[in-house]
Amino acid sequence: MSVLVVGSVALDSVETPFGKADDVLGGSATFFSASASHLTKVSVVGVIGSDYPVAKLDPLKKRGVDFSGLERAEGTSFRWRGRYRHDLNSAETLETHLGVFSHFSPKIPDKLRSSPYLFLANIDPRLQLDVLQQVKKPKLVACDTMNFWIQSRRADVLALLEHVDLVTLNDSEARQLTEKVNLVQAAQWIMARGPRHVIIKKGEHGAFMFTEKSIFFAPAFPLESVFDPTGAGDAFAGGFIGYLAATGDLSEANMRRAVIYGSVMGSFAVEKFSIERLMTVTRAEIDQRMRDMRRLVAFEEELPA
Amino acid sequence: MSVLVVGSVALDSVETPFGKADDVLGGSATFFSASASHLTKVSVVGVIGSDYPVAKLDPLKKRGVDFSGLERAEGTSFRWRGRYRHDLNSAETLETHLGVFSHFSPKIPDKLRSSPYLFLANIDPRLQLDVLQQVKKPKLVACDTMNFWIQSRRADVLALLEHVDLVTLNDSEARQLTEKVNLVQAAQWIMARGPRHVIIKKGEHGAFMFTEKSIFFAPAFPLESVFDPTGAGDAFAGGFIGYLAATGDLSEANMRRAVIYGSVMGSFAVEKFSIERLMTVTRAEIDQRMRDMRRLVAFEEELPA
Repeated sequence: MSVLVVGSVALDSVETPFGKADDVLGGSATFFSASASHLTKVSVVGVIGSDYPVAKLDPLKKRGVDFSGLERAEGTSFRWRGRYRHDLNSAETLETHLGVFSHFSPKIPDKLRSSPYLFLANIDPRLQLDVLQQVKKPKLVACDTMNFWIQSRRADVLALLEHVDLVTLNDSEARQLTEKVNLVQAAQWIMARGPRHVIIKKGEHGAFMFTEKSIFFAPAFPLESVFDPTGAGDAFAGGFIGYLAATGDLSEANMRRAVIYGSVMGSFAVEKFSIERLMTVTRAEIDQRMRDMRRLVAFEEELPA
Repeated sequence: MSVLVVGSVALDSVETPFGKADDVLGGSATFFSASASHLTKVSVVGVIGSDYPVAKLDPLKKRGVDFSGLERAEGTSFRWRGRYRHDLNSAETLETHLGVFSHFSPKIPDKLRSSPYLFLANIDPRLQLDVLQQVKKPKLVACDTMNFWIQSRRADVLALLEHVDLVTLNDSEARQLTEKVNLVQAAQWIMARGPRHVIIKKGEHGAFMFTEKSIFFAPAFPLESVFDPTGAGDAFAGGFIGYLAATGDLSEANMRRAVIYGSVMGSFAVEKFSIERLMTVTRAEIDQRMRDMRRLVAFEEELPA
C-alpha cells in the first residue's frame, strides 16, 4: 500500500565537524520519502519556490517518489541553515527562511485523498488538521511536531492529537508538550488524548514505542562515525511507516519490526549529508543492518548468526 | 563461584526532587554487594571509620555478604553528600569527605586471595593495581573508575587497563579517557590497551558491551518513576558480575544475559533511597523483570509471553 506525506521540501545548509554543505536537499517530506521509497510507494504534498532546483529531485523520482502533489509557487523556497557542534546531538539553527512555505495551504490531489497511510510531517498543526479534512479515513494517520508549534500553537497540537493514530516526537518535545519529565508518564499523557501509539525518539539513544499495554525499545544503530544528523527523525518515520504500508499489517509484532526499520533508515541517513546515503543504500544493506540490529539486542535465546 | 569487591563503604546524604535521606548506606562496594548478593556469594574489602553505624550492615550480612575484609580504622567514615535536580541524570556533589578512606590501603585476607571473580570498584587506580598484586589470577577481573582519577591519575588508569579483563565506565568517562566523542571508537581505543570487554553505561539510556567482534546493547528498564539514581552503576556491576560468578560461564551469550541482569538490578536500585529496594527485591521480581526486559526489545521472532 502507498503512503502520503505532507511536509516541507527545503534547501538545507549544514555545518558539522566533518564539513559543510550548501543548499542541499532537505525538509521533512524529502527525508521521509527518500527513506520510505525503499519500502513502498510514496507521494509528496508540499510546496517549493520558483527558485527550487527541481532537477535535484530526479534521484527521488527515479526511486518512484510521486511529486504530482508538490506545488510550485512564486517566491523563494524554504531554507534552513544549521550547525552541529562536536556532540552532534542538537542542531543549532542559524537561519530559517520560510519563503513560500509561510503561505502554504496543502491541497491534496483527488487521487491521493484515499491514501491508506498518511504521515503529517512537522508543519503548522492547523495545516495538519486541514489535511485531515481532505482525506478519506486512512488506515493509519501519524503525525510529527516540534517545539516551536508546541509553544506557539498548543491548542491546535492538542486538537490534532484527538485525530491521529500515532504520534512521533523527540524526548524534549514530549517533555515540553506534557510537562512530564518521565517519558513513560509523558507517553501515557499523550495516549490519554487520543493516539493509540506514541513513539518517542531519543536520537543516538534510540526510540520507544508506547501502546496502552506495552513498551518497545529500539536502540539507535551504533555507528563508528556520524556525519550529519539532519533528517534522521524523518528518515526514521519513513522507514517505520514505509514498512507498515508495505506489509499492511498493524499487529504489534509488525509495528515492532517497523520501528527497527525506522531505526535502520535513520542510521543510514546520518552517514552522509542530506539524502545522499539514502539514495545509494541498497536493499541488501538494509536487510543486513536489520540483522545487525537484531544481533545488537539479542539475548537469552541462541545468538542469531 | 564467589565475587570479591574492593571499594568504598560510605554514608550518603542525598537530596532528590522526591525527598531527602541523611547518612544512609552508600559507597560502591555497598551497592555492588547488595546487588550481587541476590545471585552469588560476595565478599567486601574496604574501610570504615570508628563512627560507622555497623548495625546498618546487618541486612547485607543476612543476605550472606562477607565483611571479614572490611577494616575498621580510627577516624571518620567516607561521606558523600549530593543532590539531583529534576532530570535525575547527573548528581551534583555538594560535599565529599574521604575520612579514613584517604589512608586506605586494601589488604586482601588470605582466604579471599583466590577469589575467582574480582571487581575493583571506583577507587584510586594505584590501590586497584595494588590489589592485583595480592590476588591469585582470578577468572575475571573487572574495574570501574571515574572522572577524578582519569584526570588526576591518568598514567595509573592506563596501567590498570593492561591488567583487567573488563572495564565498566560511563559515557562521559569513556569520552574523557579516550578523547573520542564516538563511543564505538572510544571502546576500540580502550580494548586496544588490554581489556577484552568494555561496558559503557549511559544511565537512563542503557549500556553497551563491546568486544572485539561484537556490540551488545541493553536498554535501561523504563520506570514510571525514578526515585534516586545513586548507586545504579554499582548495582549494575553487581548484577552483571554476580550473574557471571553464579554461572561460571564467560561465553558471549552468557555475558549478554549478565548485562541484562546488570540493567535489571540497576533499575531496582533507583526505585528507593540507598540500598533499600535492593534489600527487599525478591528473586521472583528479578526474574519477572528479566522477562520484561526481553519483551522490551523483542522483535522479528514471535513475541514472548
